[in-house]
Amino acid sequence: MIYLDHAAATPMSDKVIEAMRPYFSHDFFNPSAAYLPAKKVAADYEAAKATIAHAIGAKAADLVITAGATEANNLAFNGISRVLYLETEHDSVREVAKQRGGVAIKVLRSGLIDLEDLKAKITDETELISVALVNGEIGVIQPLAEIAAIIREVRLDRLRRGIKTRLLLHSDASQALNLLDVSVARLGVDLLTLNAAKIYGPKGVGALYASHEAKLSPAIIGGGQENGLRSGTENVPGVIGFAKAIELAKEHLNGNRKKYAELKRTLLANLQGYELIVKKHQLDNFVNLCYNGIDGERLVFLLEDHEIYVATGAACAASKGEKSHVLKAIGLSDSEIAGSLRLTLGETNTKEQLEEAARVINEVVAKEQRRLYD
Amino acid sequence: MIYLDHAAATPMSDKVIEAMRPYFSHDFFNPSAAYLPAKKVAADYEAAKATIAHAIGAKAADLVITAGATEANNLAFNGISRVLYLETEHDSVREVAKQRGGVAIKVLRSGLIDLEDLKAKITDETELISVALVNGEIGVIQPLAEIAAIIREVRLDRLRRGIKTRLLLHSDASQALNLLDVSVARLGVDLLTLNAAKIYGPKGVGALYASHEAKLSPAIIGGGQENGLRSGTENVPGVIGFAKAIELAKEHLNGNRKKYAELKRTLLANLQGYELIVKKHQLDNFVNLCYNGIDGERLVFLLEDHEIYVATGAACAASKGEKSHVLKAIGLSDSEIAGSLRLTLGETNTKEQLEEAARVINEVVAKEQRRLYD
Repeated sequence: MIYLDHAAATPMSDKVIEAMRPYFSHDFFNPSAAYLPAKKVAADYEAAKATIAHAIGAKAADLVITAGATEANNLAFNGISRVLYLETEHDSVREVAKQRGGVAIKVLRSGLIDLEDLKAKITDETELISVALVNGEIGVIQPLAEIAAIIREVRLDRLRRGIKTRLLLHSDASQALNLLDVSVARLGVDLLTLNAAKIYGPKGVGALYASHEAKLSPAIIGGGQENGLRSGTENVPGVIGFAKAIELAKEHLNGNRKKYAELKRTLLANLQGYELIVKKHQLDNFVNLCYNGIDGERLVFLLEDHEIYVATGAACAASKGEKSHVLKAIGLSDSEIAGSLRLTLGETNTKEQLEEAARVINEVVAKEQRRLYD
Repeated sequence: MIYLDHAAATPMSDKVIEAMRPYFSHDFFNPSAAYLPAKKVAADYEAAKATIAHAIGAKAADLVITAGATEANNLAFNGISRVLYLETEHDSVREVAKQRGGVAIKVLRSGLIDLEDLKAKITDETELISVALVNGEIGVIQPLAEIAAIIREVRLDRLRRGIKTRLLLHSDASQALNLLDVSVARLGVDLLTLNAAKIYGPKGVGALYASHEAKLSPAIIGGGQENGLRSGTENVPGVIGFAKAIELAKEHLNGNRKKYAELKRTLLANLQGYELIVKKHQLDNFVNLCYNGIDGERLVFLLEDHEIYVATGAACAASKGEKSHVLKAIGLSDSEIAGSLRLTLGETNTKEQLEEAARVINEVVAKEQRRLYD
């Protein structure tokens, strides 16, 4: 098997499973219980939250643990009514934003945010701007610090004019942590979404970082866990696994960057007849190919026969049979979108695998071209 | 260790962990991806949902997987405005109900619902009635079928008078599945909350059963998973584990009932100087003791020194330092509430353990009485 869809899902690392194991049936106590072993579990849970928080330069108290990135994105928008969001955002941002009077900010052909469009669309009512650090489909890294600088200007201007509406910056960093050193202060974000399942951690665990400014409204109410913002008995093994995963991601950051840059070079050097959809400002484990005139979905199935697993776009969009709104937003034609492939590299990949993958992709594409045009 | 707090948390069964293991790092694919191994994972996920649904006499399509019972309870109330709820409900029902114009239904001294009070409080506007099948603090089993019969009467009457407001019955069955054969048809519920973490399954996984009548509103929006009602990449290992746990609970139902009835008899035969808070209509693994004049919280700490772990009430209420609203509702005085202990039996317990626990509890209580009153 050559798995090239790490943006859709990552296998749990052995070290993550190992870290979680004691909490399954040994340290299984309810962290809210009064006796010592439960208090030890509560302390371990808090320590894990601190590890996750520190990895992004934050404190445990600023973190709300959720059941994944989608819930975290929903929570970020809770109680907020005027939002701007990048048109290439994931559905969990787009759909929520639309419900909350959301206006889309354009992207350039490069996939980067159109900063002029952003500036033009900020009004005195705008409360939140949501821009993913790394796009899940095309891996484009957005200039969050520049966006944050624009927001600071607006805030200052509002202050001068006595306008009390706050303006927050939210970013979904789900895809970023394997390759970028993420710091909430450096990025200038008020809200940041994290996702364990994309960094070799457990599924169904995520977090929302929220600065004091953000003043979140509770999304799920009940027993009062997570400072009352997200009630429900804590998923202790999940959070322990998340902490281990983020720790490992941090540890391997430099190695990963080098590794994926090299793997990507190998892949592209061996592939033929493609166009690169994104050429710059892209995370090194993303490769977006376009074979114009060929059906990408058919390629996915043909490659499957060779146990090579790739995607055309985001998994959840694919399952709904929708055309990629991301590729459309950056200006690709329908036939270019139809001919696109997303390859996302990860820990399971080797140089040999990518040479082999390139060889098979070339072969399959050539066969398809002959079938269609000869 | 003698663990007597199974209502707060249960250890994951080895068989559950075994069932989940392949989905950690082998069958880790995103169920929404297009290639075969991902489709196999999606099929396994659906099969697990079917197993959970069948255990309560429902279909997989009627089930929304959530990150736990609290989220399921929140989802059940989503978009509904006039509700009645039993005053002894868990905070995840009470707090949500209060936000939605909720009116509390009284309980009798027995802990059972006051059916006359229920009837008196149903108005033409009432949309939802929420009564947990088994109370999490005192294990009282509510007569849901009787409540459902009352609701059917009201529906019929509304139909006759041309009132279009629907009336739904919701029940939190989190604590029930180890000992009761739960069937949505027999109970007559439209909405039913399930919780994996209370039946030796994984933490952070639950479900809401919803009949067609219920017409749920989406709680978390995004990629459109769970029929659009609860978006987010599926927690595949969690749901696989939940299915195994509910299967095991079903399998051991009769054995469990016998086992816990016997264990409870052993415990009560060996304990001295207590009063039973609940004498009838109680799940067999619940034992609620009252030592009037003694501080239950102090007993919890004293028993901890003997590695015997018990509770005074629900874990989440305990951690907030609140007095039990449940014991208050059934009419206990402040000093009776202060002197209460909740012992909940489970798979980790043996007859010898309960004899030993009774011996130590007697000793500790006697010592406390001497300290206070001699």
